[in-house]
Amino acid sequence: MIRTLRLSWLVSVVASLALAGEGKWTPQQVQQLGAAWVKQQGFTIPLDEKLLSNAVQLPGCSGSFVSKQGLLITNHHCIVSILQEHSTPQQNLVKDGYLARTSADEKASKSYRIQVPRRFLDVTKDVLDALPPPTPSPQGASSPNLDDLQRYKSVEATQKKLVADCEKKPNTRCTFAAFDGGLFFTLTEFLELTDVRLVFAPPSSVGDYGGEIDNWMWPRHSGDFALVRAYQDGKPFEPGAFFPLSTQGVKENDAVAILGYPGVSFRAQLADEMAEREARWYPNVRALTAEWQAIIEEEGKRSPDALIATADDLRSILNTKKNAEGQLAGFARGKILEKQRAAEEKVKVFAAKKVEFAPALEAHAGLTALNTERIQTWDRDFLLDWTGRGARALQWPLLVSRRSVEAQRPDVEREPGWQERDLPRLRERHERDQKRYHPAVDQRLFVSWVKRALALPKDQRIAAVDAVFGAAKDDAAIVKKCSELAAASKLFDLETRKKAFDETPAQLTARADPLLNFALALDTERRALRDRREMQSGRVLRLRPVWRRAVIAEAGKLVAPDANSTLRVTFGRVRGYSPKEAVQMAATTSLAGALAKHTGEEPFDLPKKIVDAAAGKGVVPAKVPVDFLADCDTTGGNSGSPVIDAKGKLVGVNFDRVWENVANDFGYNPEVARNVSADVRYLLWILTTVEDAKPLVAELTAAK
Amino acid sequence: MIRTLRLSWLVSVVASLALAGEGKWTPQQVQQLGAAWVKQQGFTIPLDEKLLSNAVQLPGCSGSFVSKQGLLITNHHCIVSILQEHSTPQQNLVKDGYLARTSADEKASKSYRIQVPRRFLDVTKDVLDALPPPTPSPQGASSPNLDDLQRYKSVEATQKKLVADCEKKPNTRCTFAAFDGGLFFTLTEFLELTDVRLVFAPPSSVGDYGGEIDNWMWPRHSGDFALVRAYQDGKPFEPGAFFPLSTQGVKENDAVAILGYPGVSFRAQLADEMAEREARWYPNVRALTAEWQAIIEEEGKRSPDALIATADDLRSILNTKKNAEGQLAGFARGKILEKQRAAEEKVKVFAAKKVEFAPALEAHAGLTALNTERIQTWDRDFLLDWTGRGARALQWPLLVSRRSVEAQRPDVEREPGWQERDLPRLRERHERDQKRYHPAVDQRLFVSWVKRALALPKDQRIAAVDAVFGAAKDDAAIVKKCSELAAASKLFDLETRKKAFDETPAQLTARADPLLNFALALDTERRALRDRREMQSGRVLRLRPVWRRAVIAEAGKLVAPDANSTLRVTFGRVRGYSPKEAVQMAATTSLAGALAKHTGEEPFDLPKKIVDAAAGKGVVPAKVPVDFLADCDTTGGNSGSPVIDAKGKLVGVNFDRVWENVANDFGYNPEVARNVSADVRYLLWILTTVEDAKPLVAELTAAK
Repeated sequence: MIRTLRLSWLVSVVASLALAGEGKWTPQQVQQLGAAWVKQQGFTIPLDEKLLSNAVQLPGCSGSFVSKQGLLITNHHCIVSILQEHSTPQQNLVKDGYLARTSADEKASKSYRIQVPRRFLDVTKDVLDALPPPTPSPQGASSPNLDDLQRYKSVEATQKKLVADCEKKPNTRCTFAAFDGGLFFTLTEFLELTDVRLVFAPPSSVGDYGGEIDNWMWPRHSGDFALVRAYQDGKPFEPGAFFPLSTQGVKENDAVAILGYPGVSFRAQLADEMAEREARWYPNVRALTAEWQAIIEEEGKRSPDALIATADDLRSILNTKKNAEGQLAGFARGKILEKQRAAEEKVKVFAAKKVEFAPALEAHAGLTALNTERIQTWDRDFLLDWTGRGARALQWPLLVSRRSVEAQRPDVEREPGWQERDLPRLRERHERDQKRYHPAVDQRLFVSWVKRALALPKDQRIAAVDAVFGAAKDDAAIVKKCSELAAASKLFDLETRKKAFDETPAQLTARADPLLNFALALDTERRALRDRREMQSGRVLRLRPVWRRAVIAEAGKLVAPDANSTLRVTFGRVRGYSPKEAVQMAATTSLAGALAKHTGEEPFDLPKKIVDAAAGKGVVPAKVPVDFLADCDTTGGNSGSPVIDAKGKLVGVNFDRVWENVANDFGYNPEVARNVSADVRYLLWILTTVEDAKPLVAELTAAK
Repeated sequence: MIRTLRLSWLVSVVASLALAGEGKWTPQQVQQLGAAWVKQQGFTIPLDEKLLSNAVQLPGCSGSFVSKQGLLITNHHCIVSILQEHSTPQQNLVKDGYLARTSADEKASKSYRIQVPRRFLDVTKDVLDALPPPTPSPQGASSPNLDDLQRYKSVEATQKKLVADCEKKPNTRCTFAAFDGGLFFTLTEFLELTDVRLVFAPPSSVGDYGGEIDNWMWPRHSGDFALVRAYQDGKPFEPGAFFPLSTQGVKENDAVAILGYPGVSFRAQLADEMAEREARWYPNVRALTAEWQAIIEEEGKRSPDALIATADDLRSILNTKKNAEGQLAGFARGKILEKQRAAEEKVKVFAAKKVEFAPALEAHAGLTALNTERIQTWDRDFLLDWTGRGARALQWPLLVSRRSVEAQRPDVEREPGWQERDLPRLRERHERDQKRYHPAVDQRLFVSWVKRALALPKDQRIAAVDAVFGAAKDDAAIVKKCSELAAASKLFDLETRKKAFDETPAQLTARADPLLNFALALDTERRALRDRREMQSGRVLRLRPVWRRAVIAEAGKLVAPDANSTLRVTFGRVRGYSPKEAVQMAATTSLAGALAKHTGEEPFDLPKKIVDAAAGKGVVPAKVPVDFLADCDTTGGNSGSPVIDAKGKLVGVNFDRVWENVANDFGYNPEVARNVSADVRYLLWILTTVEDAKPLVAELTAAK
């Protein structure tokens, strides 16, 4: 008995050491971890499903209700589309912000949607039961199987059926998700709220203070928060739970949890697969985005029109580039490959000893072989993938071509993303995209892509490119050809493109548009790539779960799966960090720091009313909290996620990670794993001292 | 009695609070401060004149002897000229460094000079006794006086006489210095050592690790040190004192002192004079250097030749620009103007109460009026001043013109800097300058200057420019004219220029070189500006001391004068700092941090032998100190200064300030006043572990 007692003491010590940080837990896992574990993380309230369901999904973001009357908080950058929708030449809401002092002043959005989770279903059995019986491979289990494609198609069919059935209920949106390559599958049923009205957004010089310069950086001073109100049947929506705003806030070492919908992470990948990212993907992304940046900046210097049209694209490109650089630095700093390789070796040793895990070794070999196979056509596939960004001369004809092909099939057979349910979102892109188009920039981006395609090695040629550009002997000839194609195309015209979007392949061909014809040929090659990938995905579906089961068994504890846009919870502490030798970052910033950065010039141009209020009687800027760090395990998609304290009060709104931490998508490095949140006390200070919006403050801080 | 005791207790508390930091003390002031004060700074040894005289003056730098056998330590960046002198296409000493394992291997320099202070003389009486009797001004004492120019000329004549008399001794170099605008004057007599031999320099990837990126930055990881040996009569020079290297080093909060020859600072200026720097000088320097940078970088992209030729110039331009930006940021951060204005008000109140200081008020008014007067022609004068950098198309003809004019006069009447004693230094510049010349870059720099001159307001025209370029109606015409002038000139040819350097104005005119004729006309205007400034300097000589005496009397304690290239001592502590909210810098860095920065690409490309040694058995990189911060009061000229510990052992070699601290030239801000030193333990580690140079290490660490 004494031994057992001592052992349990030991376990509790180990658990303490494991406090906080790593793990994007599913709601189900939080229940499995148990109330005692949650309490050990510092939480004095139970994190049950009802409470967790207050984390709602927004377009590309997360959010949460903060009042009984449907008031919802998220990031400023998550509701920019609503601000744009209501901006006029006279009133720029993105720049100036907005405050609705009464419900009559709230501004309704035409297209913004909020998804409130209603049910979390494990549909693994549905998926597995529908699978065709396995066909043995003549080369062994780790090689491609005859049924790999069928497996993939079967899972896709099950997904569509489950989603379609689920969405028969009114105002319902359902999402299907695979975990760690097919270890299990879930369906989340959401109530979809479409009556969303803007209540408060700060000026962009508060919400996006520091702009691209501070993006991914710490110390940070952004008030990246905004408030909308959800309505149902014309009345404020009453959520099942909400997080009242804390007026106390958090300090260094306080426990916090973050709820939300992280998009994607890659920790379940093999070291070899990660090596492909480190050695190929990110260096190529960095090079490509650097080239695009140079083009856009050069043209922007030449023409104010180009500067305006490309601003959003450039921002997004710089973000991608900074991310790629951060990933590469993080791979090195976190010794991610070495650690993953060592972990795999341990699992292999473990699996080799237990007969029930013997297939894991073959699965590992199969995944490794698949990775090697993918590398054979890596350069070509990378270029085909990156037609989705960059030149509209590629994006637009490819969008129209793809759409025409998908539209030929019955809705249920179309690829996800191209079904009737997806069309409103696709159509909304036309206008937005048109504003971002600038002919001179686009021409150069087009040339850049074509030159890269023409430089591909012999065994990776893109036939469509060779057919059109094969005769171009030098750069001048490529430029000439690109410009001829663009000049002869009508697709740069918005109305023409909208019309073409609903045409059949035959109608498109009849247009005799040379750029469209090029895209149709290119789309054929992209389709072949997709087919190849579907087959590969079928292999992953077969192999990855086998390997992951061994990984989890070896760990001997719950393992959080990779992010996949489903609801997750991460536990952490408010903590500073050291990004490099001799530099120590504190965990919190204040209005004093924001004022110190204020130059009056974008992106450090605090609004006059903030500067004036900060100088006001009784205001001590150093005591107005602005942002804080915690060691929670977040990624893209967690933008706008509620950050709650031990009592379930909202203390912050997550909006970023530090640059040193972007490689946490591949591995959690406790030294630098820090997410960045806007402190709700900054919001409350603005609403109270700057805006004098007492009723809103009262609503935000009411506990019941 | 009790009151007195309590008061003295209070004084000692105040003195404790004033511990360390502010003040570039003269050797004489250190004696006046007294042994007790020095002890209070943490020093257990007396800092007498003999010890202080171990701080020697080098070209633009400082240094100190570290062994009885004439071994001298300074910065790597202070002896680059010796490395260049001995570099060949086969052996690049700048890049690869050098180690002389025996005295036979030491490489002698042809032109490097070391100045060892021998005597410090107060020559104030000589200067004052020689002054002409004052002539009253009809407009009052604060206005220009008839004798202002005479006063200036008299001081210049006294200076030349004192220097000439002093330099009659063999191997002697003497420098004259005015303190705080003429409060007192000194003459320093130096022993000049001309037989200087290179002993050790690290590769530039150690000595200049981090390059322009890390310049002015912290955390820093440069091994910016080098060793030379001074010889006299063919034997190692025996210094009067030397600082043996400490193997213990320093840690946070340890006392240190820095000895050296800081160049110039401006704390004795009035707030109005500083405002001219903040509002005009630094913004214009920033704009000009930014334009030059853009030109040089653009041409560098076009031509590898341009890249190589302009590398040193670009580095220097970037340094100037970063400094200007730092000054501007520091003015704001340190609230320098506000503080100076408040301090002046206190002095005015003080002076108004005491009849003996009444003239100080008028002196203040006079200096203020002089500043206003200078601003009337500010833009024009700024452009005339900046012909000394930038386009060689301006620099070279102006050098030759000026020299020809000066050479007409007897040596004793020439302006300081153009006497026979200065010619070797001037001649040495010809070759160096030629290597830095690139026609395309130079042409654009020339055009840039001319365009600025043509844009001057009506009342500030430069006649020489209007005469030559007045007909140029647009940019194309200016470009054409500049290029015609350059094409027609022979001065870009090194040999021609060397020859022209010794010609008379008549001979130069006979050359009928249009660029030279332009320069001769420009030189006339520059001379008129110099004459005007000499008159103004005469006013300053009359007014500033009167004002400063009141400032010092009001302070009621010793006040350190502004830097003026004479020997100074500053006392401080090893200390980190907070450059901004949420960021805390530690005071020390290590080899681990250097390795973390190492990318293999310049400027972060540690030599393989360092990387290998760091990975060697028993080496813990985090325990190999590299650089450290202290709150000593340094400026340009302090490069290479010895940093000694409380026992007089050498713990570091000063090489930089942090960027937040460059505005300390105008005011000491204890929050951010940090100088950066290379830790001698890094040098000892390299010599021991990497180079296995035991005899050298033994010599460096021998106390006697």
